[in-house]
Amino acid sequence: MTIRFDLLKESGRARLGLLHTPHGSFETPVFMPVGTQAAVKTVTRQELEQVGARVILANTYHLYLRPGAEVVEAAGGLHRFTNWPHPILTDSGGFQVFSLSKLRTITDEGVAFRSHLDGSPHLLTPEKATAVQNVLGADIIMAFDECAPYPCTHEAALAAVERTTRWAARCQEAHRRPDQALFGIVQGGTFPDLRYKSAQELVKLDFVGYSIGGLSVGEPKSLMYSILDETIGLLPRERPRYLMGVGSPDALVEGVLRGIDMFDCVLPTRAARHGTAYTSQGRLNLRNAKHARDFGPLDDACDCLACRQHSRAYLRHLYKAGELLALRLVTIHNLRYLFRLMEEIRLAIREDRLDSLRGERGGTYEP
Amino acid sequence: MTIRFDLLKESGRARLGLLHTPHGSFETPVFMPVGTQAAVKTVTRQELEQVGARVILANTYHLYLRPGAEVVEAAGGLHRFTNWPHPILTDSGGFQVFSLSKLRTITDEGVAFRSHLDGSPHLLTPEKATAVQNVLGADIIMAFDECAPYPCTHEAALAAVERTTRWAARCQEAHRRPDQALFGIVQGGTFPDLRYKSAQELVKLDFVGYSIGGLSVGEPKSLMYSILDETIGLLPRERPRYLMGVGSPDALVEGVLRGIDMFDCVLPTRAARHGTAYTSQGRLNLRNAKHARDFGPLDDACDCLACRQHSRAYLRHLYKAGELLALRLVTIHNLRYLFRLMEEIRLAIREDRLDSLRGERGGTYEP
Repeated sequence: MTIRFDLLKESGRARLGLLHTPHGSFETPVFMPVGTQAAVKTVTRQELEQVGARVILANTYHLYLRPGAEVVEAAGGLHRFTNWPHPILTDSGGFQVFSLSKLRTITDEGVAFRSHLDGSPHLLTPEKATAVQNVLGADIIMAFDECAPYPCTHEAALAAVERTTRWAARCQEAHRRPDQALFGIVQGGTFPDLRYKSAQELVKLDFVGYSIGGLSVGEPKSLMYSILDETIGLLPRERPRYLMGVGSPDALVEGVLRGIDMFDCVLPTRAARHGTAYTSQGRLNLRNAKHARDFGPLDDACDCLACRQHSRAYLRHLYKAGELLALRLVTIHNLRYLFRLMEEIRLAIREDRLDSLRGERGGTYEP
Repeated sequence: MTIRFDLLKESGRARLGLLHTPHGSFETPVFMPVGTQAAVKTVTRQELEQVGARVILANTYHLYLRPGAEVVEAAGGLHRFTNWPHPILTDSGGFQVFSLSKLRTITDEGVAFRSHLDGSPHLLTPEKATAVQNVLGADIIMAFDECAPYPCTHEAALAAVERTTRWAARCQEAHRRPDQALFGIVQGGTFPDLRYKSAQELVKLDFVGYSIGGLSVGEPKSLMYSILDETIGLLPRERPRYLMGVGSPDALVEGVLRGIDMFDCVLPTRAARHGTAYTSQGRLNLRNAKHARDFGPLDDACDCLACRQHSRAYLRHLYKAGELLALRLVTIHNLRYLFRLMEEIRLAIREDRLDSLRGERGGTYEP
């Protein structure tokens, strides 16, 4: 089987769904923690399960370079290599090849680049990116796309859209594993006409699901939301929709209100490693001196390991002392914060009151 | 109450005991993981409990400098600050003030030094070290001692012994909390006559327990063992004996054979952070290329989280990719390795066959 998407309920444009994959099912809207290098930084599988993660993301670009697809293949695929038996999604490497690699040259064939690790030369093409993802064996894989930067001229964004469509067709052609669901990626920068063109062309190619790429790359959030408003209606109602690289608490609510089903973002885990905790009273910087004798939990409302066991003062001490345990405890907390928010969001859709959740929580999450 | 030590059994010079503290009891011989800055690096309380830790160590010097004794006091003491409800032992800061601080000046009053963190000036005296430990609130605390370096002249080692004895008496005088057990520290470098003198003088002061300090500071292991042979017989049979800073697998067996009840060491946790795993086939460097496609566990004989869930190849990938998760998983493994060894050691004492354990395991643990 590939994936199956059951649309359980709609409330305005927001949707409640169930996505079935060969490695299990999960409810949508869903947040997917990012395991760039086949590990969600600092946390174990058990901790991910405990905070509520049901599907994680891994990065094709990173794993292709290290440890190499052949090592993951020898292990029996990503699920066995990582010992994560639940659904996995891989991106195509398209975004990373633009943001991380050096000396890249884009032609219609693909992207020639040098590794950010050792400078070695590589060529990633739609065929290669698909073959690597077939080897990695994630449940959901992405077409290889060209992500235009922000800001960007209409001309350059148009060229990226046209190339993304041509490459999407080549990915479909190259895709060899019917047990993996291939998603197309809508590009078009911040130009409504190009988003329209990209969506229309990809929908013609009939993908199992659709990603929206090229957002949250530096544009104002209001612009991202208006582009979502323009784009969503073009995508088939019965297919899952994935907003790539977006996961701040407010953007999760705003994205779901506009009809998004899936999100991923490094923000909550990265923020934790920098000492920032999400709380129901807003963000909290644990390095701040005011927490030195603050013996309450990070968030009274939270049921995570860090909040049940440790005080802000202790966590602050761990950060100041350079203890890695802090990074881990606050990663668990921030993930749990987002998963509790997603639970609230799904409940609010069920009860047709997502708009009022936005109101209620308007002051408590921040951009 | 202070501590109570029940000597359950002797087998040769090896001893099986039960040490009761206000925060619970533990069997001896015992290995104590080191939580230098009020945290055993990378692991949680639950993980410590799961690997078998029953008592942990914290460092007075580090906590005095950061977060400061007054913060730990405001939290209600170390047990509450760290949320470790089991026994805790603090050292006196004596060793650290010599090994870590800068520009130190030793007088009979105490040690004036500059913080290794910010260069600020401090004076640690027997009275101050005891007062700080009274505030930290560990179950077992140490007298402030002068640890002579290795190598060292007989004259310098003698001066350190005499000062250590004078300071030990001042620590007893300054000690304010009957619920904390104060141990004296035997010094004397590698000179049997000075070890004899130090032990004799401290035994006269009648401590609840005796530590052996100033070993494993650079001298050959054979010399450490012969000094232990000379020293142990001088200590009262019914009091616990703690060999400070020693915890390699072979030294644990050799120390127990010579009558040691307690050990601590940063080695197993530090080795883990550098990619070295203890296994029943000897040490294993996970960064080694030969583990790239090694899909078996770290150690077939081990029941820890890392061995039950992950392959050497995956752990190697995590190290090579700089993923902190690796440090944590192998810390858990190395601690579990030592706690399984301590379980074996206690069983072997019970069955009067510790000598044969040394033979059996002679090739499988390394210095």
